[in-house]
Amino acid sequence: MVKTNAGRFFEDYQIGQVIGHAVPRTVSGGERALYHMLYPARHALYSSDSFAQACGLAGSPLDDLAAFHVVFGKTVPDVSLNAVANLGYAEGRWLKPVWPGDTLRSVSEVIGLKQNSNGKTGVVWVRTEGLNQHDEVVLRYVRWVMVKKRDTDAPAPDAVVPDLAPVLAVADLAIPKGLDFSNYDFDLAGEPHRWGDYEVGEKIDHVDGVTVEEAEHMMATRLWQNTSKVHFDGTMREDGKRLIYGGHVISLARTLSFNGLASAQMIVGLNAGAHANPCFAGDTVRAWSEVLDKAETDVPGVGAIRLRLVATKGGAPFDLRGEDGKYLPSVLLDLDYWALMPV
Amino acid sequence: MVKTNAGRFFEDYQIGQVIGHAVPRTVSGGERALYHMLYPARHALYSSDSFAQACGLAGSPLDDLAAFHVVFGKTVPDVSLNAVANLGYAEGRWLKPVWPGDTLRSVSEVIGLKQNSNGKTGVVWVRTEGLNQHDEVVLRYVRWVMVKKRDTDAPAPDAVVPDLAPVLAVADLAIPKGLDFSNYDFDLAGEPHRWGDYEVGEKIDHVDGVTVEEAEHMMATRLWQNTSKVHFDGTMREDGKRLIYGGHVISLARTLSFNGLASAQMIVGLNAGAHANPCFAGDTVRAWSEVLDKAETDVPGVGAIRLRLVATKGGAPFDLRGEDGKYLPSVLLDLDYWALMPV
Amino acid sequence: MVKTNAGRFFEDYQIGQVIGHAVPRTVSGGERALYHMLYPARHALYSSDSFAQACGLAGSPLDDLAAFHVVFGKTVPDVSLNAVANLGYAEGRWLKPVWPGDTLRSVSEVIGLKQNSNGKTGVVWVRTEGLNQHDEVVLRYVRWVMVKKRDTDAPAPDAVVPDLAPVLAVADLAIPKGLDFSNYDFDLAGEPHRWGDYEVGEKIDHVDGVTVEEAEHMMATRLWQNTSKVHFDGTMREDGKRLIYGGHVISLARTLSFNGLASAQMIVGLNAGAHANPCFAGDTVRAWSEVLDKAETDVPGVGAIRLRLVATKGGAPFDLRGEDGKYLPSVLLDLDYWALMPV
Repeated sequence: MVKTNAGRFFEDYQIGQVIGHAVPRTVSGGERALYHMLYPARHALYSSDSFAQACGLAGSPLDDLAAFHVVFGKTVPDVSLNAVANLGYAEGRWLKPVWPGDTLRSVSEVIGLKQNSNGKTGVVWVRTEGLNQHDEVVLRYVRWVMVKKRDTDAPAPDAVVPDLAPVLAVADLAIPKGLDFSNYDFDLAGEPHRWGDYEVGEKIDHVDGVTVEEAEHMMATRLWQNTSKVHFDGTMREDGKRLIYGGHVISLARTLSFNGLASAQMIVGLNAGAHANPCFAGDTVRAWSEVLDKAETDVPGVGAIRLRLVATKGGAPFDLRGEDGKYLPSVLLDLDYWALMPV
Repeated sequence: MVKTNAGRFFEDYQIGQVIGHAVPRTVSGGERALYHMLYPARHALYSSDSFAQACGLAGSPLDDLAAFHVVFGKTVPDVSLNAVANLGYAEGRWLKPVWPGDTLRSVSEVIGLKQNSNGKTGVVWVRTEGLNQHDEVVLRYVRWVMVKKRDTDAPAPDAVVPDLAPVLAVADLAIPKGLDFSNYDFDLAGEPHRWGDYEVGEKIDHVDGVTVEEAEHMMATRLWQNTSKVHFDGTMREDGKRLIYGGHVISLARTLSFNGLASAQMIVGLNAGAHANPCFAGDTVRAWSEVLDKAETDVPGVGAIRLRLVATKGGAPFDLRGEDGKYLPSVLLDLDYWALMPV
Repeated sequence: MVKTNAGRFFEDYQIGQVIGHAVPRTVSGGERALYHMLYPARHALYSSDSFAQACGLAGSPLDDLAAFHVVFGKTVPDVSLNAVANLGYAEGRWLKPVWPGDTLRSVSEVIGLKQNSNGKTGVVWVRTEGLNQHDEVVLRYVRWVMVKKRDTDAPAPDAVVPDLAPVLAVADLAIPKGLDFSNYDFDLAGEPHRWGDYEVGEKIDHVDGVTVEEAEHMMATRLWQNTSKVHFDGTMREDGKRLIYGGHVISLARTLSFNGLASAQMIVGLNAGAHANPCFAGDTVRAWSEVLDKAETDVPGVGAIRLRLVATKGGAPFDLRGEDGKYLPSVLLDLDYWALMPV
């Protein structure tokens, strides 16, 4: 009797299936310190309890992306162990801050299935929720992955492709209870620019670069208890390199975006995301952003800004796609998210 | 007057000598987070306060092996700075959980001495205790090392070879106060198999592999305040490589064993252990286990399982020794321990 | 409109200018654990709450150099982003311990300006203060850096060179409230030698070495939110190497000095410091110390010891300068500081 988890294959999923993922995780000040060690994280709301308190919160929450990685990591053994590709994200909503001492677990529901025409793989859509120890949903998002079939002769399921919003409506963004930017300290935030200073269509080159080492991305990915073999096992490729977890690139790009977007404090919505090309140790990751939209919110002083965040390894700033419409080889990530910023 | 510690040589030890090791250490949520970053640690009892509370504990303790490494690390400057080889472990017992906020220190007693026939080295046996800030013993184990003589002309001591139990009796395993697996959540644990599902003689290939980097093992070893030069100083070998601390391999293998043994939650006994071959950066570490024994305990619902844990760098799963009876070159570690599992 | 921070150039500074640096930072047990992971840190007062309490403190503070790095890191975007060289430190005083839970921010005042004769660069002196959440100054020091001019035609300011003490007077050293070495446990400290055992002029070779990896120094430097590009971006040099943050070398050398100076517990004064040569991944860092001075303090049992701490990458112990009076190429750091030691 084999006792190890071989992961699910395409024919193991059914529409409506609910998967409670294993290994709940309590986070502490340790995870916060590590996020600062692994990424050039400088957003003041996540760095300083005092700053967060001046913004109406009880203290500094766990970085939104750290919460995302913890929730995501738990889904890997059940959703993407046999995935060929991580295809996309949609309708990602951060619903409650995660505090030191909270325990997170994840649950996913299968909401879409579509076998590919080659008969060897299929696409699985799951809606994943991260819950805290009070069973409150702190985060919810959809992702879809291409998964291998165990048996190519297994019958194809009826195709169900979920109807996903291309962009979250501003009304759907959850603004943390108590958040108040009326006493926002722009000097301490490290950013003279406020919501009103950004224009739709504006592009920002974040200038700084980070050359990634194997040890760093493995430690980050392990911290989120992500078990995907390709990130850790150097024998899976001839060059000994390990494929860097896409979420590591997201966090690198987001933290690099401090330089120009330091007041895009809280991520509240993930509209879309594509991992355009693989990232490997030795690559120097840079980032640029584009303001896609802006909106007022119900909370006085709090504006929403929709940003495209692009991570690159070489190439000129603001390059994205070639004449063929495909991502350039230098593009690693194209992410579309909503953040909260003082008006 | 030389003020640096040159370490003890074989003739510096006497039977009955008690050595109080330096540098007590307070552990916190930081050490827990780091254990998750450095190893693919996923055992739920050590990951989640909620899960540990559902198992009757006050919260999630420090990982048993992290406690072992902290206690062990303190002994290095006094016991193994001039060691040629770490020969074995026996009678290791975890007596109390270590909690965030606890301060650990270590004390060793010399219980065995035997000069080698070459007259240049000798074997030293010590029984080491780790104590918390309440002077409670949290961990006790015997290890023996081969140590250089300072002066080969120094007379040999009377040989004293301690009588060590080859395997701890189940009655000697300390089950943490309050531990209760009656509400054990197998889904959250990530393991459908319970104690009753494992058979003596059964072998489990843990499948996953981790390719180790210099930065990772040095950071781990430093975290435990282990000062052995060979782990940090690249000038000690011609190839610039640093010998990886054997305890790093133990923790890698144990955490890899989650995949197939996720409910072997708590380590309570260390029967024996051999570091069969050295491990270096670039090696891809894998693990397999063999069920050596099973026993019921006094606590309802809590079973004891005795496991052989083997770490390898290459080779086929379950390979251990060659026709000559010696460990194969691909075998890094052969560990024999008792763990607690829900019946 | 460019939104990224291009940093200040020489002509952007004026005497008396006060710069409030961005991104306050709350520290926790996580930062303490990381300091132990990144450096061979073993000074008992910073490792153990129990030991610190036996020395009259409320618990174990954040390591003095970790506090220094946090305060220093915040100044980089405002002071040294366009610096050509970090020229020196003076009058560094640790005024209050930093506790887990404290939030630190930094403020600098420009106290000196002198354009270089080449007209392309100038020297800027700043006095930096680190403050906690109670607006108490925990640390104050002067450093000076050589900064590029944006426009070489910009007029030179009147030269103002501050009058800095070459060495802090013992009366200026702040001894933490409550510090009491009368019950000092030399065994737990790992050091048989007390203040009275060290002689002025005595030199100590700290013996141990650490071969540095890119991942380690980048993680350390990032942890302190130091944003200087040269430490992270491998495309800035042809060999792909990243220049190691000088403060990383300071912490490596200080922690290596445990072996011989384990009871030089608290750093209270920084008299001077020079980063003699750059450090790169692959270098094996060693350290030696020289006792420069000794003094009694107002607090019974607490002695002050003034130490030269030299970090090297090769070369013989105690080598410092060549016949030309210049630092030898193997010398990385020459630091002059005051520490507190049990009499």
